[in-house]
Amino acid sequence: MGERILVINPNSNEKVTAGMSEALEGFRHEGGPAIDCDTLHEGPPGIESQVHSDLVVGPLCRMVIEEQPHTAAFVIACFSDPGLHSLRETTERPVMGIAEAGVTTALNLGQQVGIISILPNSIPRHRRYFRAMGVEGAIAGDLPISMTVAELADEKKVFQRMSEVGARLRDEYGADVMVMACAGFSSQRAGLEEALQVPVVDPTQAAVGMAMTVLASRSRT
Amino acid sequence: MGERILVINPNSNEKVTAGMSEALEGFRHEGGPAIDCDTLHEGPPGIESQVHSDLVVGPLCRMVIEEQPHTAAFVIACFSDPGLHSLRETTERPVMGIAEAGVTTALNLGQQVGIISILPNSIPRHRRYFRAMGVEGAIAGDLPISMTVAELADEKKVFQRMSEVGARLRDEYGADVMVMACAGFSSQRAGLEEALQVPVVDPTQAAVGMAMTVLASRSRT
Amino acid sequence: MGERILVINPNSNEKVTAGMSEALEGFRHEGGPAIDCDTLHEGPPGIESQVHSDLVVGPLCRMVIEEQPHTAAFVIACFSDPGLHSLRETTERPVMGIAEAGVTTALNLGQQVGIISILPNSIPRHRRYFRAMGVEGAIAGDLPISMTVAELADEKKVFQRMSEVGARLRDEYGADVMVMACAGFSSQRAGLEEALQVPVVDPTQAAVGMAMTVLASRSRT
Amino acid sequence: MGERILVINPNSNEKVTAGMSEALEGFRHEGGPAIDCDTLHEGPPGIESQVHSDLVVGPLCRMVIEEQPHTAAFVIACFSDPGLHSLRETTERPVMGIAEAGVTTALNLGQQVGIISILPNSIPRHRRYFRAMGVEGAIAGDLPISMTVAELADEKKVFQRMSEVGARLRDEYGADVMVMACAGFSSQRAGLEEALQVPVVDPTQAAVGMAMTVLASRSRT
Amino acid sequence: MGERILVINPNSNEKVTAGMSEALEGFRHEGGPAIDCDTLHEGPPGIESQVHSDLVVGPLCRMVIEEQPHTAAFVIACFSDPGLHSLRETTERPVMGIAEAGVTTALNLGQQVGIISILPNSIPRHRRYFRAMGVEGAIAGDLPISMTVAELADEKKVFQRMSEVGARLRDEYGADVMVMACAGFSSQRAGLEEALQVPVVDPTQAAVGMAMTVLASRSRT
Amino acid sequence: MGERILVINPNSNEKVTAGMSEALEGFRHEGGPAIDCDTLHEGPPGIESQVHSDLVVGPLCRMVIEEQPHTAAFVIACFSDPGLHSLRETTERPVMGIAEAGVTTALNLGQQVGIISILPNSIPRHRRYFRAMGVEGAIAGDLPISMTVAELADEKKVFQRMSEVGARLRDEYGADVMVMACAGFSSQRAGLEEALQVPVVDPTQAAVGMAMTVLASRSRT
Repeated sequence: MGERILVINPNSNEKVTAGMSEALEGFRHEGGPAIDCDTLHEGPPGIESQVHSDLVVGPLCRMVIEEQPHTAAFVIACFSDPGLHSLRETTERPVMGIAEAGVTTALNLGQQVGIISILPNSIPRHRRYFRAMGVEGAIAGDLPISMTVAELADEKKVFQRMSEVGARLRDEYGADVMVMACAGFSSQRAGLEEALQVPVVDPTQAAVGMAMTVLASRSRT
Repeated sequence: MGERILVINPNSNEKVTAGMSEALEGFRHEGGPAIDCDTLHEGPPGIESQVHSDLVVGPLCRMVIEEQPHTAAFVIACFSDPGLHSLRETTERPVMGIAEAGVTTALNLGQQVGIISILPNSIPRHRRYFRAMGVEGAIAGDLPISMTVAELADEKKVFQRMSEVGARLRDEYGADVMVMACAGFSSQRAGLEEALQVPVVDPTQAAVGMAMTVLASRSRT
Repeated sequence: MGERILVINPNSNEKVTAGMSEALEGFRHEGGPAIDCDTLHEGPPGIESQVHSDLVVGPLCRMVIEEQPHTAAFVIACFSDPGLHSLRETTERPVMGIAEAGVTTALNLGQQVGIISILPNSIPRHRRYFRAMGVEGAIAGDLPISMTVAELADEKKVFQRMSEVGARLRDEYGADVMVMACAGFSSQRAGLEEALQVPVVDPTQAAVGMAMTVLASRSRT
Repeated sequence: MGERILVINPNSNEKVTAGMSEALEGFRHEGGPAIDCDTLHEGPPGIESQVHSDLVVGPLCRMVIEEQPHTAAFVIACFSDPGLHSLRETTERPVMGIAEAGVTTALNLGQQVGIISILPNSIPRHRRYFRAMGVEGAIAGDLPISMTVAELADEKKVFQRMSEVGARLRDEYGADVMVMACAGFSSQRAGLEEALQVPVVDPTQAAVGMAMTVLASRSRT
Repeated sequence: MGERILVINPNSNEKVTAGMSEALEGFRHEGGPAIDCDTLHEGPPGIESQVHSDLVVGPLCRMVIEEQPHTAAFVIACFSDPGLHSLRETTERPVMGIAEAGVTTALNLGQQVGIISILPNSIPRHRRYFRAMGVEGAIAGDLPISMTVAELADEKKVFQRMSEVGARLRDEYGADVMVMACAGFSSQRAGLEEALQVPVVDPTQAAVGMAMTVLASRSRT
Repeated sequence: MGERILVINPNSNEKVTAGMSEALEGFRHEGGPAIDCDTLHEGPPGIESQVHSDLVVGPLCRMVIEEQPHTAAFVIACFSDPGLHSLRETTERPVMGIAEAGVTTALNLGQQVGIISILPNSIPRHRRYFRAMGVEGAIAGDLPISMTVAELADEKKVFQRMSEVGARLRDEYGADVMVMACAGFSSQRAGLEEALQVPVVDPTQAAVGMAMTVLASRSRT
């Protein structure tokens, strides 16, 4: 009771934070932990490079230190998992990264994971990270939808591009489960799953679920 | 509402089933899915070989077919994940295996997973399975406590052996997170985590958490 | 003398069993072991899913127990290697699986193995298995001919499809040796090898050869 | 009829060649291929280094060219598989290497292969080769018996050392099948298998078996 | 001419910077590039955690931007390669990391790399990084000398501990080349190589050599 | 001073040797080691097969023995790295292979290496070698330009083909750094880098750089 999971959006886009919170509604139960979503105001408008990812680590650490007295678990809601290991050094609370949680959750729903990314230049960053996690062998492919920020505002167009890329991952790369490589696409999950006929993982949901599992496991001594 | 997760213990030991159910208390929330634990009465007293594991697949398929009209997700609660892929062919409901869920959950809490097993002859079976999952590179080691059924009744002795084996996995194999390779050890989790000072995953809890994540994710269309 | 290898066709199609036996003629020598082929009458008409594969394990175990007094080695002649590890627990006689033997034999004839499969849905099952065997890195590709049962009766059409798929594995995937992922294609081996100009392995022949090697090795004490 | 397998001992030690031939007695059947063993007279007394291995390639190529008109398949009987890929370029006949055949055969008898070597300095050479073959993940360990040439003459002492090393590979490295990493130890196979209670592969037998499989497979057009 | 390599020590310990510069004397040639070593004054006294590593990325980026007008290549002289990929996004000049350069250089001198580290808690950080680089399979082991800062001042004791750890990596882990996992040990390289009788790589030297190779390669159009 | 690196061209084409020497001009500094390029006169006109590669090992060993009294380090300038490990047994001087050095150097400039080869039949040979080196996971692709010797004389056409193949490796295989898999293409490096906009490694330059790094490192005791 009183337990709280804090989901931090490391970019400063509050609309993205609000979208996340909405996507997490199904995880909120009477008697379960509170699930709060907050924005890292020092963050850039979007995390689109390794530099962006590295430069939010300091602010994230400060935020985690500040919030930990009244937080049971943290979720870093950016698919680059910025600062994940630094934050784990900084707090003894569980810290989940949405890329790590998204991919490992996907491994329970399929055996060849397709990654639907936004920008082409994130692919090599993802690859380094999947290698570091030791799961690269289970990644069927990672393809970008390659849309500009302006285009991303058009949800229908986003859906169409994600469907196309997902279909290619399924048909040409053999993916039997998809992970959306972004915290801002939650609203597309259900439609995409319907369209592609394979499970689609929203990584923010996966990470919050992972945090809830850890808290629930510990609730029994 | 009315959603139900069915956790099936594929061995016929009802005491094990009852222990699981108790361990899952923290996952039951007002408004969340019901979590029922049931025993596969056709199962052997324990699943201790590949033969045991293979021979429960038929009965498991029948049970899943029978239960699926009033079940939203299934968990197969034996660390051999018997019939996991057959069951996924049999039902469209999500089916979680506790080995798969336990190891993938552990990857969110550490990066070198130690497996605390019961019998030495399960090690090669586990290895085949970890390889098939594509996560073998993240397994630090898999060591048995090598206790007879009679000895397993003595919870203190079990704790002592699990602590010894866990300490060896941590100190000699570099494991920074443990998975208990059995559905029947839930009551040891907290004590072991305290003793070893690294996270310890009860795979049944992990699999139920995984099922809850999938259901909660889908609850938002 | 008196030594006998029993090749078990786990599906109930006796025509397939007869075809195998014919393909093994070159392995029968005066003074060598008898090579008998038998049908698992409890088996399904074809093994086309994980369920099919898992459900024959019980009958296979019974058959092996019954036959072992007068059998020196067993071959399970289905590319899913159903029950292979259970059978190895059940009998002390060598038990060969045709997928395992086919792929490992192919590694002596080339270094990038192309798998010519029948149905698309067998590909993920094969992948799990190649991973479990630890040889996934040597698999160049696995492509299905995607023919219906009716079409499979037309040997010419089968040959044409296998040639097309084999050529694609060779030219696009870099395969320099092929394995036919089915026990029922023995009669296509020579023609395919001629057409593709790379070695083609019939896995049933490979497994019988492997069994003969083990028996011949043991004949000298 | 008239088919002949030529087993070439690339070192000049005719006693080793004679020992091989004896070990292959069980592979000779009425109506089966002739199995001849011959010595590469230009070879060094033993192949104990990469230099030894590389320098026999020229003479091996010449021997294979000379013998191919009356030879159906070749076996290179040295665990370094000297010149294997050069010989495969040189002749269209199948050429088997005993390391490749020994390890791939072992994968049909166990899943973690222990390698019992002679000299410590061969371990890195083996590792390069297992990696190149793509089977390194299935090698449990590779340990030398570290005996001098003089000591190797004492068969009892060799047996004792091989048993010790094999037991260590089994108990400390988890090996469940052994390969003797030398063409000269055939006479130890049966005793070692008895002592260790896991299958032991004589790689020369494995390679001859592999050659016989290929020839028998082709005998049916 | 005029070309300059800037080696940045990301910790603020100027004595370490001076030691590096001395170690690089052999790389300075008439007509070759200038090799300057500089200290990141914003850095911590030592980089001993992921947090330390992440928090220097911002200052490193600023320093690189400032220095790039008169710098041809950069070397980041800390074995965590802090900010390596961010810096590569920041400047078009080549940026070398000493871990990456040290390990890849070692692969030219041996095939199983032993890593001699300072602190135990750096091992998991290194493992993530070796995995991300895709070279984890070539790492024989990574062992810490586990000395306190006070003890590190005693060069003799450091040498003794590094020799012990190196001998263990060589004898128990099969390492045939060593990398010193720190920029501050250059003065130990020659003695250690002599003591261990295997090549020992100072990663700062390796990275400067790598930078010189790139510059020299480009000097010819 | 007086130190000398000997670059051996294992094929007998002196024009290739001269081209190398020219490409190495940027590595020659006042006070740095002499860099001599010499031709193995016993070598074939080109090394285009495993046989070619194996048969130069003997002559290379003799040349290295002869030259070592006045040579500090050797470079074998053929992308098959013929005899590399034999030469390392033969001399205590460092011996660099251009494939090993080229690929490991490339790993400092990108993370997915594209290999631009000449002949299709070299691809499987390269694959065996990359596997043996343990870096196969970092190879994005290996594609041949497939030109005849006559065509290779036309530098413009070579450039055009290399550009096409490089662009395909970059765009379809995700390569972000290229290695030219031949010692004879040095003059193409700069143009290709310009055309492809990713770093291009001339492996002979990389290997000479590696040798210089080792010598410079040792110059400081």
